[in-house]
Amino acid sequence: MMQVNGERIMARIARLAQFTEADRPYTRRAFTDLYLQARDWLRGEFETAGLTPRLDEGANLFGERAGRESGLGALLLGSHIDTVAGGGRFDGIAGVVTALEVAQVLHENGVRLRHDLGIVDFLSEEPSDYGASCVGSRALAGTLSQVMLERSNPAGETLAAGLRRMGGVPERLTGPLAEAGSIRAYLELHIEQGPVLEQAGVPLGIVGGITGIQRRAVTVSGRAGHAGTTPMNMRRDALVGAARFVDLVWQRAQAQAEQLPFVATIGRLDVHPNGANVVPGAVSLVLEARSMDDALTGGFLEDVCREGEALCQELDLEFSSESESFAPAVACDPELRRLLAGAAQRRGHESLELMSGAGHDAMQVAALAPVAMIFVPCDDGISHNPAENAHEAHLVAGTEVLLDAVLSLDGQKE
Amino acid sequence: MMQVNGERIMARIARLAQFTEADRPYTRRAFTDLYLQARDWLRGEFETAGLTPRLDEGANLFGERAGRESGLGALLLGSHIDTVAGGGRFDGIAGVVTALEVAQVLHENGVRLRHDLGIVDFLSEEPSDYGASCVGSRALAGTLSQVMLERSNPAGETLAAGLRRMGGVPERLTGPLAEAGSIRAYLELHIEQGPVLEQAGVPLGIVGGITGIQRRAVTVSGRAGHAGTTPMNMRRDALVGAARFVDLVWQRAQAQAEQLPFVATIGRLDVHPNGANVVPGAVSLVLEARSMDDALTGGFLEDVCREGEALCQELDLEFSSESESFAPAVACDPELRRLLAGAAQRRGHESLELMSGAGHDAMQVAALAPVAMIFVPCDDGISHNPAENAHEAHLVAGTEVLLDAVLSLDGQKE
Repeated sequence: MMQVNGERIMARIARLAQFTEADRPYTRRAFTDLYLQARDWLRGEFETAGLTPRLDEGANLFGERAGRESGLGALLLGSHIDTVAGGGRFDGIAGVVTALEVAQVLHENGVRLRHDLGIVDFLSEEPSDYGASCVGSRALAGTLSQVMLERSNPAGETLAAGLRRMGGVPERLTGPLAEAGSIRAYLELHIEQGPVLEQAGVPLGIVGGITGIQRRAVTVSGRAGHAGTTPMNMRRDALVGAARFVDLVWQRAQAQAEQLPFVATIGRLDVHPNGANVVPGAVSLVLEARSMDDALTGGFLEDVCREGEALCQELDLEFSSESESFAPAVACDPELRRLLAGAAQRRGHESLELMSGAGHDAMQVAALAPVAMIFVPCDDGISHNPAENAHEAHLVAGTEVLLDAVLSLDGQKE
Repeated sequence: MMQVNGERIMARIARLAQFTEADRPYTRRAFTDLYLQARDWLRGEFETAGLTPRLDEGANLFGERAGRESGLGALLLGSHIDTVAGGGRFDGIAGVVTALEVAQVLHENGVRLRHDLGIVDFLSEEPSDYGASCVGSRALAGTLSQVMLERSNPAGETLAAGLRRMGGVPERLTGPLAEAGSIRAYLELHIEQGPVLEQAGVPLGIVGGITGIQRRAVTVSGRAGHAGTTPMNMRRDALVGAARFVDLVWQRAQAQAEQLPFVATIGRLDVHPNGANVVPGAVSLVLEARSMDDALTGGFLEDVCREGEALCQELDLEFSSESESFAPAVACDPELRRLLAGAAQRRGHESLELMSGAGHDAMQVAALAPVAMIFVPCDDGISHNPAENAHEAHLVAGTEVLLDAVLSLDGQKE
């Protein structure tokens, strides 16, 4: 088994962390000069690892090495190096740096694959100032719409113009940038951004899929009244109905989560008029649920809303809800998942299967090719925060599994 | 029994309603030229009713007629003619106009009382732009502090300067403007601003007192987390604890209100960070309770906060609360209440005793003299709103009771 260089992984992560706004670590927003400087450095690292840099029309930065055979499709590994404002050193970055390490280890061991090998840094996975996220992976998959391209950032620049500034060719983004079959598999390592692996004491997660997200906007309406002059038995207090609904959703979600990976959240709730001396007349809130089973998620929302309506009726309140958004679940490829789990086992790394509750570039690439993801633990599940932290041993384990999975895929008969 | 002129009452209320900002009926804010114009008109009406106008150092407008005997103390009736922005035609105004009607009926019937008679329009009962309410009645009672007088409105004018503009003498407001014993009784008619009388079908309310108001600022703290990556069984969702607390307060308040007049309200609640995709990390809310028994109100708040802390502990949440404000209850004078109830009975008007959950000028005057209040119903309990409405028959009934109470007080042996 080939050795992975953990020190080199950590040194590259530390080097990328230096490309940050000085007074707001760690901030390296896509579409900035700082981001271009980091990419210039990354280009050099690609060359060190025996890769040829290339920027595609979606301003995704590739490092590529041709395979011994043609027509097999590329093995593509990567993630993104842009950050949110005040983000961390690992989110996305860990995926690019470990992929680069795989390429370098192969290069240093004189291994030339049958397949083409590609390492990719996707443009602007994080929500951009133009109102879109996963900009580069959408461009690759052909799902960056004209509407998205015409949106402007607060400075008035369109995403199309921003893309051109980053080296892209927006007028060419009218379909997928890769042909069907041209990518054999896409593998992405990412920090978990949640607490599951750390609490289980397991170094690796094999991602079963990226959950669908469904949101409903809920309004509970009663009647506003003077908090001093409206007797208790004449009140129609919308907050009481909303409170009982919050508790109901919590209890139903806890029960559902015992059956399968499932979360439901009321993260946003606004009271109207929200004055200390006014009985609440209305409450608006956003209810969301996530699972791998879109029908189950939708059924959950319908059920709790039906129950919510009934308990509000008991309080003489009105309950209404409407769909706000629907993003379908994306399953990771079963063959690739088995392959990653097998590689982990052979290296002696414990792993568990878990869902990704957050979106990733892999979700976009799934429209083009089989995809799979490896998660590594992060301290306290903290992400999008300067305190975000991951450990060398876990990153090495993840890189080893990526490396072995690449070799397995390359050795398969077509 | 002397006759009260209902048409005149309604005509005066309609006339005052014309002193309004044209594009925002009904708005007649204290400290404006519009307010001074309304007071000029009121001065003339005082004279028509045989009263002599006088402005005191607190810029309260009095209409006075001396009694046949001296040293008995004045019988004082009134309320205020200022409104909130976008307020109604009756709040405060009904109290001044019905008091004026009492004086005019006595005048027209050739009745000269033994006691001095005073009708008063208190300056700025509604919250002023200088951050104080009940400005004039506080000035009368000597409770308008130097701190209040030095506060500025958004335009940078101090309350002292505003008071001077209204004809007051702020530097003289270092103690009560009326001597102990100089007011025999203060009677105030007001719309209920709540639904109790209307729903009971009773035209008059005899106010037992103005409830005390105690507020506590409550914080429920858990841990914010990503709504997609934090499993249900690892969440510390502050909103769930806050929701259970809202329901608890509602249930305990309903039970308490069955024993005696009592209300408790959570009118303001803020979720942090309040994002659809973030598990709530903290919730801050304001809990208030009102009753005539300050110890009972305080005990209620302590009890529910203790229970709230316990139910939050079950969810691994922290619960903290601290006192935000405390305004003690003010009882109406028992003798005056009996006198009003007796007068209502003799006129054939049904009445019931109820509490005032809102503050009034009478609350301030209570520091100087015995006070009592009569409530009349208002449609749907709506107040501080252009839709505010009260009915001639109820205003007439209330005026009759005020009139007869004045005569009873005047006939009493000292």
